[in-house]
Amino acid sequence: MRGVFLSLEGGEGAGKSTQAKRLAEALEARGVHVVLTREPGGTEGAEAIRGLLMQGAVNRWSAHSETLLFAAARADHVEKLIRPAVEAGSWVLCDRYVDSTRAYQGAQHIDDAAILALHGFGSKGLLPDRTLVLDLPDGAGHARSIARDGGAADRFGARGPDFHAAVAAQFRRIAEAEPDRVRLIDASGSMDDVTTSLMDALADLLP
Amino acid sequence: MRGVFLSLEGGEGAGKSTQAKRLAEALEARGVHVVLTREPGGTEGAEAIRGLLMQGAVNRWSAHSETLLFAAARADHVEKLIRPAVEAGSWVLCDRYVDSTRAYQGAQHIDDAAILALHGFGSKGLLPDRTLVLDLPDGAGHARSIARDGGAADRFGARGPDFHAAVAAQFRRIAEAEPDRVRLIDASGSMDDVTTSLMDALADLLP
Ligand SMILES: Nc1ncnc2c1ncn2[C@@H]1O[C@H](COP(=O)(O)OP(=O)(O)OP(=O)(O)O)[C@@H](O)[C@H]1O
Ligand SMILES: Nc1ncnc2c1ncn2[C@@H]1O[C@H](COP(=O)(O)OP(=O)(O)OP(=O)(O)O)[C@@H](O)[C@H]1O
Ligand SMILES: [Mg+2]
Ligand SMILES: [Mg+2]
Repeated sequence: MRGVFLSLEGGEGAGKSTQAKRLAEALEARGVHVVLTREPGGTEGAEAIRGLLMQGAVNRWSAHSETLLFAAARADHVEKLIRPAVEAGSWVLCDRYVDSTRAYQGAQHIDDAAILALHGFGSKGLLPDRTLVLDLPDGAGHARSIARDGGAADRFGARGPDFHAAVAAQFRRIAEAEPDRVRLIDASGSMDDVTTSLMDALADLLP
Repeated sequence: MRGVFLSLEGGEGAGKSTQAKRLAEALEARGVHVVLTREPGGTEGAEAIRGLLMQGAVNRWSAHSETLLFAAARADHVEKLIRPAVEAGSWVLCDRYVDSTRAYQGAQHIDDAAILALHGFGSKGLLPDRTLVLDLPDGAGHARSIARDGGAADRFGARGPDFHAAVAAQFRRIAEAEPDRVRLIDASGSMDDVTTSLMDALADLLP
């Protein structure tokens, strides 16, 4: 029996990594086997590409090179980890996936159709069964990431507030355009509240 | 005044790097300024991607991931080095370029149109003004690379003779399909003979 592929999305500091762990625990408590992974990364090759993407100066890569590197990392991750795990019956929970590329590189004016074409080429267009977008008012995620680590943890966090507002707007646009797959989740409540909302948004998929 | 963009292509050990240096000298003797570069690589970012591509096990990357990584490296190289140098009036001589991706990844059944679409996305489809393909009988390049360094210098050299014959066939196909841009050069003669043939194939571009 095929498993289920879930992605957790949202801007910096929205709570993706926090909720990925909590959601995995809540799902395991329901008796499903969860494989927790992240992008960019998740496999040896993709983590090596992650190093190139996340480190260095903000302008190290053009938006086009960056988009190709994300697609390359995702292709490796999908082929070697995500697809085999889902086919073996696991629930795969991925901290960021292709919608992050659509939001972050889309906010740098890379065409959405071009990003999806690269995804078709590299990863046979594999989309999650459900994508949960953690949504926060502009600035709130940055405040959380400052509280966590002083902020600017990588090349993307180092960009300004306008960029992050554009990213959040892209995520909202995707959720609106693809309501079956993508659910916008209010991430401003307590951690427990958010986990409850995430589980509610998966109710129809749960055993 | 716009410069000229040249690429040198061919299979392993065909003499590309040897002839790149010799051709650069012959062109400089004609009074043109030559920028000698190589792929994958040529810029800081692209050389970092080269490290991922050339090292590790033969099967480290799928053909699709590999194709995306080459496209990412080329995008950086074109944007930061090749295009500015050609626009500034230099002759840019590149040791391998997109036709190597077409030949090597094409020999792994990656669709030629898909490779050109990635090239359109990452590098705005920039093609050389002239591409010189060094052609050798099957096996001759491998023998030269064994004499040079014992062979198997990287992930591609480590593949078998059938793969290298398929690569050479792809290069011949490209030369046949695009005779204005691409010239097949007999690389079996002496180094001097080959340099003479290369310069002859550039006669219409020389000042
Ligand atoms: N519901 C919440 N209320 C308050 N703080 C939270 C909440 N959820 C997460 N946090 C805190 O906010 C910070 C950012 O959370 P987390 O690292 O999970 O976000 P993220 O979306 O993974 O960020 P990044 O995009 O940087 O990976 C952490 O310090 C975390 O403890
Ligand atoms: N015309 C020639 N006759 C004989 N030997 C040659 C000739 N041209 C080059 N060689 C030798 O063949 C070997 C391979 O040449 P070279 O390194 O230039 O090939 P290459 O195409 O750049 O190889 P690679 O694909 O591995 O980068 C070198 O040892 C070089 O000295
Ligand atoms: Mg995180
Ligand atoms: Mg060489």
